[in-house]
Amino acid sequence: MQATLVISARLNNIDMDPSQKLIKIFSEFPGIGPKQAKRFVYFLLTRPRGYVEEISKLFADLKRQTKICSECFRYFNSETDEKICKICGNKNRDISELLVVSRDVDFENVERSGGYKGRYFVVGGTIPILDKEPEHRIRIKELLAHAEKMSQNGLKEIILGLDANTEGEYTEEYIKRTLTPLATKFALKITTLGRGLSTGTELEYSDSDTIKSAIGNRK
Amino acid sequence: MQATLVISARLNNIDMDPSQKLIKIFSEFPGIGPKQAKRFVYFLLTRPRGYVEEISKLFADLKRQTKICSECFRYFNSETDEKICKICGNKNRDISELLVVSRDVDFENVERSGGYKGRYFVVGGTIPILDKEPEHRIRIKELLAHAEKMSQNGLKEIILGLDANTEGEYTEEYIKRTLTPLATKFALKITTLGRGLSTGTELEYSDSDTIKSAIGNRK
Amino acid sequence: MQATLVISARLNNIDMDPSQKLIKIFSEFPGIGPKQAKRFVYFLLTRPRGYVEEISKLFADLKRQTKICSECFRYFNSETDEKICKICGNKNRDISELLVVSRDVDFENVERSGGYKGRYFVVGGTIPILDKEPEHRIRIKELLAHAEKMSQNGLKEIILGLDANTEGEYTEEYIKRTLTPLATKFALKITTLGRGLSTGTELEYSDSDTIKSAIGNRK
Amino acid sequence: MQATLVISARLNNIDMDPSQKLIKIFSEFPGIGPKQAKRFVYFLLTRPRGYVEEISKLFADLKRQTKICSECFRYFNSETDEKICKICGNKNRDISELLVVSRDVDFENVERSGGYKGRYFVVGGTIPILDKEPEHRIRIKELLAHAEKMSQNGLKEIILGLDANTEGEYTEEYIKRTLTPLATKFALKITTLGRGLSTGTELEYSDSDTIKSAIGNRK
Repeated sequence: MQATLVISARLNNIDMDPSQKLIKIFSEFPGIGPKQAKRFVYFLLTRPRGYVEEISKLFADLKRQTKICSECFRYFNSETDEKICKICGNKNRDISELLVVSRDVDFENVERSGGYKGRYFVVGGTIPILDKEPEHRIRIKELLAHAEKMSQNGLKEIILGLDANTEGEYTEEYIKRTLTPLATKFALKITTLGRGLSTGTELEYSDSDTIKSAIGNRK
Repeated sequence: MQATLVISARLNNIDMDPSQKLIKIFSEFPGIGPKQAKRFVYFLLTRPRGYVEEISKLFADLKRQTKICSECFRYFNSETDEKICKICGNKNRDISELLVVSRDVDFENVERSGGYKGRYFVVGGTIPILDKEPEHRIRIKELLAHAEKMSQNGLKEIILGLDANTEGEYTEEYIKRTLTPLATKFALKITTLGRGLSTGTELEYSDSDTIKSAIGNRK
Repeated sequence: MQATLVISARLNNIDMDPSQKLIKIFSEFPGIGPKQAKRFVYFLLTRPRGYVEEISKLFADLKRQTKICSECFRYFNSETDEKICKICGNKNRDISELLVVSRDVDFENVERSGGYKGRYFVVGGTIPILDKEPEHRIRIKELLAHAEKMSQNGLKEIILGLDANTEGEYTEEYIKRTLTPLATKFALKITTLGRGLSTGTELEYSDSDTIKSAIGNRK
Repeated sequence: MQATLVISARLNNIDMDPSQKLIKIFSEFPGIGPKQAKRFVYFLLTRPRGYVEEISKLFADLKRQTKICSECFRYFNSETDEKICKICGNKNRDISELLVVSRDVDFENVERSGGYKGRYFVVGGTIPILDKEPEHRIRIKELLAHAEKMSQNGLKEIILGLDANTEGEYTEEYIKRTLTPLATKFALKITTLGRGLSTGTELEYSDSDTIKSAIGNRK
């Protein structure tokens, strides 16, 4: 969780008008460049006053009503003071399995697939190759603590659900290594997601690793 | 200038949490789909509280400090109570020429080119083909009034600076027709931007209209 | 194996010059439209005479020296009169496994991966959904005959290596069904390539089937 | 007109089979990479023998029946022994105008536009920036000779019809400079194609040069 500077610190001293500041801020939104940021500002300008005020209110609500689950660390929405999300609080989920994912969007996509009935843990990112302080990039301490607690309550398997790319594999490797003592102590299985042909893959255009996995994992 | 419903009217009754409402709102931003809208919400969640509050404040500042110039109708930023933008207030701009553009971004791009020294007028949009009420799509009345006033003060030429596509040409045609009586009365020239090869155009891939213009406008 | 009309039948009566005929023919090449076809013709025109003659000669050589292997039905190059390709003739390949692929390019890509040491069979295509005569689309009779012969010589497993898309799955299903009696008779395993995350896949953008496979095939 | 090595010189000594040689050759076709080149070879293999023979015959016909016009230097098709193309031989074309283009495809596209009724000259390429021997890149000597001849027969204007990109402009500049003495001698006008908005251009995304031209060439 990298520290993020508060905007005011960065922008207040600079001689920019609100539209220029907003263009700068929107340019930091994921996938947005300066041209589209400017279109956002013009878009907001053409909206009625109530529109923009409503967004401001929703921003405040978002921060106030969105909590981080104290168990799986994913964001969840709640107007009460509960500490854990609906999945961690659901007695019907399988507590023998824990799926570790990078981000909330990964959790969401897996949950939407309907293919998993256990618990989740959101580590909050991935580790860039050769990063010197991986323990600051992801919630590894929290994962260890949570996995240990779950191990005392029936956990049997930790599934590492990282992306199938270099950074994902590097992160997977790091988590696996860190979890090994715990896995040994509690006889936990540590598994990784199956590799092979994903939907739509054509053999002609597949890389060698995917083909090898697909042949190795045939059934 | 289509009327825009205020969000609260649309969203308040619906049983959605703030993140879902924000996803819906961001999905209305130009060029943004639901997937990216969701990424925006997660992005905001990972920012410190001050960040989001700062954006809210900038939204308010934007609305308060951004005015529409009473002459050219473009947005401009001002903390005082001046009514006209810097270009309309600039004595050194050539008041014999008025360039009519669709949107603020067009104005900005022309101004950045450094190729124009006269005045501008932002009509605020284009007219879809076969639209029944073109007078509600663009600021045609305001343009007429402004052009008349400028005609009494030395205006000689109105340059129609619309996009070189079907909707732009249709809008150009409509504006030209509407301005004709005024142009006759004050002996104004009404011109359109030159057509031809734009930078990077290759002859092999040019359409016939562009080629004809390029040959017709050779020099 | 659709019948292809010989060009002369189609083009001879038509009043076209050689360049127009060639543009028409190049437009039939995979992935080539009329514009690029025309560029090919101009490209050939700028080459020296020897160049074009050499291509003509290579066309003839290609047809003469390229044979279809009588066992796996893939194309192979040979200047002698041998009937089977190097892989089918290689005593070191594992004769207990037969990998069925659609096309030569699939064979090539699997072979390049180095992940497979058995034999191949190229069925020559895929079956469009709801096709009425699937037996005319792929070499199913030849596959049956070849698999039967191999079964008498130690074949244990037939791996269906089709693309992971609708047409590939449909073809896979058809082949499986057709091979079932043979598989029962000789106690052959029929397997399909493993599904899961292919290299580069990100969880956030994976479809539900891929996620389910990846979880189901974890290890 | 760079010299092109005859294929046999390059390929004969190399230990490649015809399909590998053809893949190499198709990879030299404009816009074709090795993957698509391979698809071409497999495509040819699946065609009946007559198909490939027909292409070979068309290659021979192409070379035999295609001539270069001795006046404008474009390719034209002819089974007789005429020396000049239909346009150069057409008495109805305007002999007071000569349009200089890079390549046959440019000629074709201009002619298809219907916007030009004069004569053409194909210089056969463009000159890379800083090229040391521009006189070997394009048919400048031939252009000079042809323009001189035409000047004695009523030529009034030479229109330089190069692409609106860096290399096109550089070539235009070189041709202009080289033609200047002739232009002076015969009082020829040398013009270039008009610059401005090409069809489809939007002001918001136009570069400054295009905007300046569009404003400068307004009418």
